[in-house]
Amino acid sequence: MNKFHSAPLTAVKLADKFFAPGQQQSFSVTIPSALAKCEETGRIEAFKLSWKEGAPNRPHIFWDSDVAKVLEGMAYSLALKPDAEAEKVYDDLVDLIASSQQPDGYLNSAITTDKQQGVDNRWKNLGSNHELYCAGHLMEAAVAGFEALGKRKLLDVMCRYADYIDSVFGYGDGKRYGIPGHPEIELALVKLYRATGNEKYLRLSKYFIDARGDDPEFFYREVTRATSLSYLIADMPVREQQEVYAHAVRALYLLCGMADVAAETDDEPLLAACRRLFRNIVDKRMYITGGVGTSFDTERFTVDYDLPNDTRGYSESCANMALALFCRRMLDITGEKEYADVMERVLYNGALSGIDRHGDRFFYPNYLEVNDNFVQYHAGRKIRQPWFNCSCCPTSYSRFLPQLGLFMWSVNDDLVRLEIPAAGKLALPGRTVEVCGNYPFDDKFTVKIGSCGKFKLAIRIPGFAKSVSFMLNGEMINMPAVDGYAVFDRQWCEGDEIICNLGMPFEFIRSHRKVTMNRGKVAVMRGPVVYCCENTDNPGDVSSLFAAAGSKFIAKELPDGYPAAEFDGFMEKLDGEELYTNKVPEYVPCRITAIPYALWQNRGETNMNVWLPEML
Amino acid sequence: MNKFHSAPLTAVKLADKFFAPGQQQSFSVTIPSALAKCEETGRIEAFKLSWKEGAPNRPHIFWDSDVAKVLEGMAYSLALKPDAEAEKVYDDLVDLIASSQQPDGYLNSAITTDKQQGVDNRWKNLGSNHELYCAGHLMEAAVAGFEALGKRKLLDVMCRYADYIDSVFGYGDGKRYGIPGHPEIELALVKLYRATGNEKYLRLSKYFIDARGDDPEFFYREVTRATSLSYLIADMPVREQQEVYAHAVRALYLLCGMADVAAETDDEPLLAACRRLFRNIVDKRMYITGGVGTSFDTERFTVDYDLPNDTRGYSESCANMALALFCRRMLDITGEKEYADVMERVLYNGALSGIDRHGDRFFYPNYLEVNDNFVQYHAGRKIRQPWFNCSCCPTSYSRFLPQLGLFMWSVNDDLVRLEIPAAGKLALPGRTVEVCGNYPFDDKFTVKIGSCGKFKLAIRIPGFAKSVSFMLNGEMINMPAVDGYAVFDRQWCEGDEIICNLGMPFEFIRSHRKVTMNRGKVAVMRGPVVYCCENTDNPGDVSSLFAAAGSKFIAKELPDGYPAAEFDGFMEKLDGEELYTNKVPEYVPCRITAIPYALWQNRGETNMNVWLPEML
Repeated sequence: MNKFHSAPLTAVKLADKFFAPGQQQSFSVTIPSALAKCEETGRIEAFKLSWKEGAPNRPHIFWDSDVAKVLEGMAYSLALKPDAEAEKVYDDLVDLIASSQQPDGYLNSAITTDKQQGVDNRWKNLGSNHELYCAGHLMEAAVAGFEALGKRKLLDVMCRYADYIDSVFGYGDGKRYGIPGHPEIELALVKLYRATGNEKYLRLSKYFIDARGDDPEFFYREVTRATSLSYLIADMPVREQQEVYAHAVRALYLLCGMADVAAETDDEPLLAACRRLFRNIVDKRMYITGGVGTSFDTERFTVDYDLPNDTRGYSESCANMALALFCRRMLDITGEKEYADVMERVLYNGALSGIDRHGDRFFYPNYLEVNDNFVQYHAGRKIRQPWFNCSCCPTSYSRFLPQLGLFMWSVNDDLVRLEIPAAGKLALPGRTVEVCGNYPFDDKFTVKIGSCGKFKLAIRIPGFAKSVSFMLNGEMINMPAVDGYAVFDRQWCEGDEIICNLGMPFEFIRSHRKVTMNRGKVAVMRGPVVYCCENTDNPGDVSSLFAAAGSKFIAKELPDGYPAAEFDGFMEKLDGEELYTNKVPEYVPCRITAIPYALWQNRGETNMNVWLPEML
Repeated sequence: MNKFHSAPLTAVKLADKFFAPGQQQSFSVTIPSALAKCEETGRIEAFKLSWKEGAPNRPHIFWDSDVAKVLEGMAYSLALKPDAEAEKVYDDLVDLIASSQQPDGYLNSAITTDKQQGVDNRWKNLGSNHELYCAGHLMEAAVAGFEALGKRKLLDVMCRYADYIDSVFGYGDGKRYGIPGHPEIELALVKLYRATGNEKYLRLSKYFIDARGDDPEFFYREVTRATSLSYLIADMPVREQQEVYAHAVRALYLLCGMADVAAETDDEPLLAACRRLFRNIVDKRMYITGGVGTSFDTERFTVDYDLPNDTRGYSESCANMALALFCRRMLDITGEKEYADVMERVLYNGALSGIDRHGDRFFYPNYLEVNDNFVQYHAGRKIRQPWFNCSCCPTSYSRFLPQLGLFMWSVNDDLVRLEIPAAGKLALPGRTVEVCGNYPFDDKFTVKIGSCGKFKLAIRIPGFAKSVSFMLNGEMINMPAVDGYAVFDRQWCEGDEIICNLGMPFEFIRSHRKVTMNRGKVAVMRGPVVYCCENTDNPGDVSSLFAAAGSKFIAKELPDGYPAAEFDGFMEKLDGEELYTNKVPEYVPCRITAIPYALWQNRGETNMNVWLPEML
């Protein structure tokens, strides 16, 4: 039932200041360094299946997924920037992985090698052992290699593995019940189906979605180590869920798979669940940055309006990227602008705050407030790290950054839609369109037509725009928004030009009254970009800053090219070392500088704050 | 080296409106209901050692401690309010426990009974199995029975057990290394030493303190399940610790034991560690309520100035009571007023907020903010509960409430010191003193002498007093404070009367600038009492209330007898259901009512807040 699809990866060229550098860097830094880490830690060696008890680098049940994600990223990277040497590395890695496939099709380096887990432990612990999760990531890598590079080898390997999995799980005779503790295979099987046309894979994906909740106690029975059923989303059928809960990455990967299956099978109740859970996330359980999963405690969704900013919160990089992927799917299916609005919010903030400007340092959780009393929980650190024991986030960036172009445009036979007007170019046969400007750091952008012919071009009018005006070839043109888009339907000539001017001032934004953490506080936004304060640019520690109500903003550029906002505030001064005191603080007027949230902690260790208390 | 000691339990009669009702209720409600719960859950039955695999109520490694704490409370209760029927129950319970002692002296219902844990598992998992912890609580119960009631039976049983423990652990030949994962036995062995005069018990206590940190990896080696070393306070010698960390109850029980050993052995470095860690708690890691342990995550201390108010925080009832017990010890040793100040703060707030006005419902953590987006972590609930799976807090109240009188006075041969001038009476031979008034809900209290003779009477001048004046037998008298106490040294006649007037207005209190959670916020205090706002008494949800800077306070009494503060504020109104909005809220002037924190949630489920944002 899809109304749109992304423009093909190679049809989109990014040329803006926000996404393009990250994408370029992924080819030269993020992917190579993740690959090196996979080598160094034994993740690649593991596919030789030669590990023996007592040797270092014991294969771990997550490992295959890390390698798969890097491999997926390599495929996109090679498609966008061919490189013979890198392609050789890619091919060798595929050969190695293929060599680890068992005669019956099974493929998992940890379970196959580690006699403690043992071959007899296949499918014995679906709740924790991540076999189906790893299989899913390898399927995604296989489809990426096939679609981006036309390489079939891994695709064939993964089809065999999928055939084997299909022989084990399902409703049919001789098959057993089972669902993955960590969703991922659902969306991957739909990719495999789309790549091969084999409906078996779609049916298996649908099985893994439909079977969820059929047997709530399943995970409790299969092994001694019980995790909560809600954390594993096993407690009820997905179509009945009213609220989003569970580990955030699990929840979002499952939602992606649900959207895919709904799209391919016209399953309206399934799509309705996707819509409902999306609204619950966006209306009640999402940080202003588009970050999701608000508790370091099991990295999960909690309850409505519970959005702690400091280290009690979470907002895992992987979950935030997954929200963007889910939005992209829902936008494809429905064509509705609300999905583009959220997709844009998360892309400019929480999805990319997890990686540094050099491309090889990562935040696992993305806090909105970092201060002197920083508590280290799980993988949360005050500065970005090169790698983690559970290194899902770094490898997620390896595959996410090359794909950034997919988020900019929506396409169908009838229409080209500009969803995010970041500078760049779309080159489809007969439909070439270029976007120039410095959106979202400037109000104005220009859309230039690069090919002659008749086609519809739609431009999204973002929800935050205070005003919109268009000039077509130098003349003002009144374009009423239709469902949030201005649709130009005409015979284009090469060189036609639309200048769009969005009213997108800096603003103080407040949270819903029930977000008690943010009561009396404001955040600064301009368009889709959330700004934050670092000590680096401010007269005192950011924890002492108050925003002055009604302050005017000045846009400025910092020496190193950061777009910034300057506004009025006060610095609280309260001397003395008593923990509790009846002294009254002094409030000293000052100017406050804020930079885009996604760029923070790129100039050394510092404190940071998004939500400032407001002084009326 | 003790400079003071508490007045004997039976020498103090409480007659105030805050402590006395709780103490009285402990005799009739708290202890009987805890005992009933111990029956109901199999905790008492467990001492029959008849539990078999597969039967209900599998004995748990915490259980003996629960029964021990109730038994300890029963001893105090019987001493303060004799009751033949209750004494029969007490004696029977002692007989049952005694009957469970093994031939070699060992006594633990869970380890002895449960073949899965098995007799061979004795001392196999000191990190988690709580054997030494349970032994400690039984020793405390034994000493209580001996000292309060003169009953020797349990004392003899526990001396045998202590002798056996001493034969197992220590530095000597044939003894093994070991320290408890949960401290408690250290302070209990000192009690046993003081009751019996047997120095072996003091030496064993000192061993468990000195040995801590000797072998940091011990807990990691003994069993497969590793807990962090810092959580178990195993990573360094206690005398070297610069900051308080670990599970808060463990840390405080250990500090009590350290103080006891320091006092008995004149160990100055050990006392210095107690002083240092006390200051770290009080200056940087304690809620305004005297609550400690600021993270639900393993119920522990975290870092300086990390004091979250909502469900991310903790402030466990047991930890708060333990802080009061530690303060009492430090006050005894040093005679220094700072310990009395903190002891008073925790007693009027965080130590007693965990129990309801009926005496049989409990908070495990004591949050400072409860709102609509309440997340349930561990044992944290929005209303007090009758019992918990791990029911340490209810049983702690069973023994803590009867002992409340011990905190009011300090005594030595030379001096009687009134530490907390709550209404009540001290009756020592030749030194009878009565306190009248409604402190701390009134500025004035009266001290009446009930016996003739010469003795020194000192009255503490609390740190919060803005002014102090004394009238002796109707005449103003100038009494300069000496180390924080006004010392009356004279020949007293029965009927002599001192009227003390403390300047103790309601005040807005602020946190240290580094407590980022409370930036821009104020709490209301009067004297030692922290006030909080409940929805019940206020015009809107407490999460929407702002305190007006510089507001005047009115003291009032609510219909049900609650002392309350009324002051000016604003109610924030922000309509609409958007999670993030550029709308500006309206602030409507209103009157705000606050009640003592310890009394909250006694009138049904409600939201509550201690720290209100301030409107300048």
